[in-house]
Amino acid sequence: MDSVPYIALVAAAAGLALAAYFFGVVKRADPGTPRMVELMEAIQQGARAFLRREYSWVSGFVVIMAVLIFAFLDYGRPWGAIAYVAGAVLSALAGFIGMTVATLANARTTQAARSGPQTALPLAFRGGAVMGFSVAGLALFGLAASYLVFVEWLEVDDAFQVVTAFGLGASSIALFSRVGGGIYTKAADVGADLVGKVEAGIPEDDPRNPATVADNVGDNVGDVAGMGADLFESYAGSIIAPIALAAFAFTFSPVLQERALLFPLAVGAFGMAASIIGAFTVQTAANATARDLARSLHRGTNVAALITIVLAFVFGWVFFGDVDAVENWWGFPVAVVAGLLVGTGIGFVSEFYTSDHYGPVKKIAQQSETGPATTILGGLSAGMSSVASAVVLIVVAVLVAYWAANEAVPGEDITGIYGIALAAIGMLATTGVVVSVDAYGPIADNAGGIAEMAHLPPEVREVTDSLDSLGNTTAAVAKGFAVGSAAVTALALFKAFEQAILVEGDVLSLDVGQVDTFAGLFLGAMLPFLFAALTIDAVGRAANKMIEEVRRQFREIPGLREGAEGAVPEYARCVDISTQAALREMLVPGGLAVAVPLVIGFVSVDALGGFLAGALVTGFALAIFMANAGGAWDNAKKYIEAGNHGGKGSEPHKAAVVGDTVGDPFKDTAGPSMNILIKVMTIVSLIFASAFV
Amino acid sequence: MDSVPYIALVAAAAGLALAAYFFGVVKRADPGTPRMVELMEAIQQGARAFLRREYSWVSGFVVIMAVLIFAFLDYGRPWGAIAYVAGAVLSALAGFIGMTVATLANARTTQAARSGPQTALPLAFRGGAVMGFSVAGLALFGLAASYLVFVEWLEVDDAFQVVTAFGLGASSIALFSRVGGGIYTKAADVGADLVGKVEAGIPEDDPRNPATVADNVGDNVGDVAGMGADLFESYAGSIIAPIALAAFAFTFSPVLQERALLFPLAVGAFGMAASIIGAFTVQTAANATARDLARSLHRGTNVAALITIVLAFVFGWVFFGDVDAVENWWGFPVAVVAGLLVGTGIGFVSEFYTSDHYGPVKKIAQQSETGPATTILGGLSAGMSSVASAVVLIVVAVLVAYWAANEAVPGEDITGIYGIALAAIGMLATTGVVVSVDAYGPIADNAGGIAEMAHLPPEVREVTDSLDSLGNTTAAVAKGFAVGSAAVTALALFKAFEQAILVEGDVLSLDVGQVDTFAGLFLGAMLPFLFAALTIDAVGRAANKMIEEVRRQFREIPGLREGAEGAVPEYARCVDISTQAALREMLVPGGLAVAVPLVIGFVSVDALGGFLAGALVTGFALAIFMANAGGAWDNAKKYIEAGNHGGKGSEPHKAAVVGDTVGDPFKDTAGPSMNILIKVMTIVSLIFASAFV
Repeated sequence: MDSVPYIALVAAAAGLALAAYFFGVVKRADPGTPRMVELMEAIQQGARAFLRREYSWVSGFVVIMAVLIFAFLDYGRPWGAIAYVAGAVLSALAGFIGMTVATLANARTTQAARSGPQTALPLAFRGGAVMGFSVAGLALFGLAASYLVFVEWLEVDDAFQVVTAFGLGASSIALFSRVGGGIYTKAADVGADLVGKVEAGIPEDDPRNPATVADNVGDNVGDVAGMGADLFESYAGSIIAPIALAAFAFTFSPVLQERALLFPLAVGAFGMAASIIGAFTVQTAANATARDLARSLHRGTNVAALITIVLAFVFGWVFFGDVDAVENWWGFPVAVVAGLLVGTGIGFVSEFYTSDHYGPVKKIAQQSETGPATTILGGLSAGMSSVASAVVLIVVAVLVAYWAANEAVPGEDITGIYGIALAAIGMLATTGVVVSVDAYGPIADNAGGIAEMAHLPPEVREVTDSLDSLGNTTAAVAKGFAVGSAAVTALALFKAFEQAILVEGDVLSLDVGQVDTFAGLFLGAMLPFLFAALTIDAVGRAANKMIEEVRRQFREIPGLREGAEGAVPEYARCVDISTQAALREMLVPGGLAVAVPLVIGFVSVDALGGFLAGALVTGFALAIFMANAGGAWDNAKKYIEAGNHGGKGSEPHKAAVVGDTVGDPFKDTAGPSMNILIKVMTIVSLIFASAFV
Repeated sequence: MDSVPYIALVAAAAGLALAAYFFGVVKRADPGTPRMVELMEAIQQGARAFLRREYSWVSGFVVIMAVLIFAFLDYGRPWGAIAYVAGAVLSALAGFIGMTVATLANARTTQAARSGPQTALPLAFRGGAVMGFSVAGLALFGLAASYLVFVEWLEVDDAFQVVTAFGLGASSIALFSRVGGGIYTKAADVGADLVGKVEAGIPEDDPRNPATVADNVGDNVGDVAGMGADLFESYAGSIIAPIALAAFAFTFSPVLQERALLFPLAVGAFGMAASIIGAFTVQTAANATARDLARSLHRGTNVAALITIVLAFVFGWVFFGDVDAVENWWGFPVAVVAGLLVGTGIGFVSEFYTSDHYGPVKKIAQQSETGPATTILGGLSAGMSSVASAVVLIVVAVLVAYWAANEAVPGEDITGIYGIALAAIGMLATTGVVVSVDAYGPIADNAGGIAEMAHLPPEVREVTDSLDSLGNTTAAVAKGFAVGSAAVTALALFKAFEQAILVEGDVLSLDVGQVDTFAGLFLGAMLPFLFAALTIDAVGRAANKMIEEVRRQFREIPGLREGAEGAVPEYARCVDISTQAALREMLVPGGLAVAVPLVIGFVSVDALGGFLAGALVTGFALAIFMANAGGAWDNAKKYIEAGNHGGKGSEPHKAAVVGDTVGDPFKDTAGPSMNILIKVMTIVSLIFASAFV
């Protein structure tokens, strides 16, 4: 068993090597005409400038938190603070790498699209895969290395708290990247659309629109860098949760405890292997249809999932088959597989509610015939309905994992919770390939933008559009994994928090019949609503600034609207406005997520317990609601644009555009931020548990 | 102390006498021209027909539930089933009386409006007061009588469970009245608006629109009868909760227990007296301005509240001043007053977010300049923000009431919960006058409709409009009381449920760290979203049927659109369609509210405990969110219609109309149904507690 952390390191290195290889493939591809290169570089510069400034703001926050951890918490001082910074740095690095390759792959995908989808799809996918495997590789590397350094070499006291601090570092970056990136991308998108399409009457991505570069930058900083940091954090969190629980559980059997501590790293390692194999199955024939393309991407995730299921049982037998304290070794792999299957199930729920192949989107498109009000109501109710199936699936995963782990080692509640944590890791075991498929979407989206701005023939845009709409569906699946694992991981971390309080000699009352726990539950259920309101408002304010700037340029730059020769918009000004607005606006919601649990925790740990439970269940419900309502509106609009209900420019289309605009901050700002919100609050509580008591 | 139930009966009789007196005043008023009488009668017939059919459907449900209670529950058989039916009948009666007087008062208010607002306002208010005092009088009468019959005369075993069954009867009617009435009113409203205003280009309430009578019927069955049954249930529930808790608590001191059992009835009695005095202060001078009118209505509630506060301390001293087991008698009245003040506070929060005197509505009106999408986002985020203040206020009420009651009788957790129940009763002590002010709104609204349909001069419509817009704000205050008390009452009933399980010899684990409780919490948090989706969809489907019928009439009745002589629309067909659709659509959501807690309870009581807690906190948050978002959109539209941002017919106005239409099912169907949803589920669980174990 001593070799497990090294095996995890090797798997991480293999993932990173694959990322490097794909990076080379992308870099060598033809970036296209000088105009395309120019646009690509403008997007690159904008995205880099934003990330540089974002990271420099956030590093201030990271320093403060590191000092707090150093000052308030005595575990393994100074290692907790150091692990925290390491988690933050690796998470930021994952986002940066993803953004870098995405801004190289966009123009190259456009160029490849000139030879058809069968050339463009693998290129865009490989661009996405660089991020996918960087995220999973860096996270697995960081955790395996932390384990070796803190647990085995230095034998630090409270080593598992130190590993948790690594997770908090990752969460801190993820929180601000998701919120800041989400505000950036939607401020630019909404601002560009409202003035461009509505007022000036020019199409999306038209080079005359000054906000168009900012819009494309937004895809990279929000959907790529933000998502990368988010999934780094999710993946790391899902491995940390069972490790933290194993440290409290299984104290009655040192052999079992060691195996239980190492099993999560093993799942990470074989999940990585499965993802690598899955990634290589994404190939398309020369005469591929849209259906073939979709099948090709799905094949990648399905192959990886199947291999993971088989290996879960193999490794489960190797780890637990010969341990006396274990009655049924299959209990632990069943928990892993339950997570994986439910993750896929939630992905399917998202697909059902947001793809135009199914009823809900078709119904919203139909409702657009009676105007924007019915379109909005249709999307809201579709999003709210989707909460029911997703919650039922999560509850099934939780109950099955709990039951299975208790079959393995009967009698202890904490064993069941360890099983729940394994379900979370099962959901994210194939992160490498899942993120690859997800990150492919914004690259295809950007490729379309460049095709439009560089005045390429319409056939090229058609190819990139087909890739893009495919990306919307595959992204829904990835979001299902992300949000599902967030709920399950937060539940496991929540139990780890309870244990941490117990270890400090205090008993946490999570009885919601107690008045302080109930008050906490109530406040916790409220916070996601407040957080959503703050982020939606932030997008609105930032978009307004963008609108003013675009109007100013159309007014002051002669000939811009008409597209006269030599009338060049000042793209950089718009990029700058989005950057500043996003950074300013992310501080309040981001700060709240960290400050509120600290304040409540120092007042009453019981209230904090209730608070975390309330925020978890309501935050999950709002995350699913907003993501699926937003996705449904988006695809209802695309469905109409494909020629249904009157097609582009018709009254139903206008109504659908309203739905899409409302959905933008839902699905790309407020919704995805919920995942991190609930996890950051739980992990902050876990880290500061000893300080509260 | 033996006289307390009789005093409560006298107070109830006084309330009912006042209602009868006001009924006479309204009835004697001039109903206006023959055309007005004809319209009034059409509305009356439609409303009666709906209530008759609704009650006959619901009576089937009531019979089934009565049989279930009789069969499954052995307490005081057959008294539980009888009390259940009595609660249902009185609740239905309260709704019926309110509806009857409202459909008499509407045309009379129109007629009075011809002499100016100072004549019309008192008449409309008195119409509302008939319902307000019928609701409070019947509820107080029913509870005092139940107490006398079951507790003192028959000395039934489990008498407090029997009284709770009375509450469940009231809740059953309230649930279906709110959901069915809410679907009816919004289906008619949305259907009439979409075809009338948008397609046919005729103004609201134009007599050529076949759906216009159905629209006015809707105001009476939804906003009046539905609201009446709702507040009957809230008021009854708020008195039952402390009685049920007192039965479990204070067993160590028979004197204290008797006082604690009777104090809630005393609060009901003196609250009624205060309300009667408050109602008589609503008078207006001959030359009253809009400001004076508003002040006059506010005076009614404020006077009643002040008297209630003083009497709470007087009665608190009388009841608890000489009881040995009580350390500080002021603890109990402080709990009552905390509830009353927080109810007012939540009312103010609603007013702040939904009145055009404050920032949020002005901001939404401003956002309508950039189109419907930003209008929608503005309303959603205002609604979500308002959740924060309302939750903080509720938490304050809960904590203060808990603390104060524990100051009165230290050491017992259940005492604190009794205090929380007293806070709920404090919120609703002045129900008589609060409901009067609320029910005044739909009467004024109907009066405007009749003025329009009867082709009265525009000055009349101006007067009724000024009364109506005033009604929107005062209704917000009433909604604040209703939703706040729902949350606090549900919490108290939830604790009574815990006690009922304990009494059965089982221990309820409400520890959300336990996997089954947590699974319940998660499912509970999901249900309000599903319920909202179902009711919003129901409105959409019903509105669509209405749209088809209106289109058909415009197509098939020659000269209707042009308003030719002799071209009369078939109003009754539209009324019929709304009726059928509302009845069919209310079954699934209404049935869910009763069936889901029963199913979960028979599987696991721990899961049911978590489920109720999750549904309570999320349901409250959604209720506040939807009510305030809807109210804000409505008043943003009215603010624009008053001449701001371009006024009626401008692009911002069109955007605001979209917001208003989205808000309709939010504020009048899904939002208000949440209050009852959470209470019905809790009270069903409480009643069936012994069957679950």
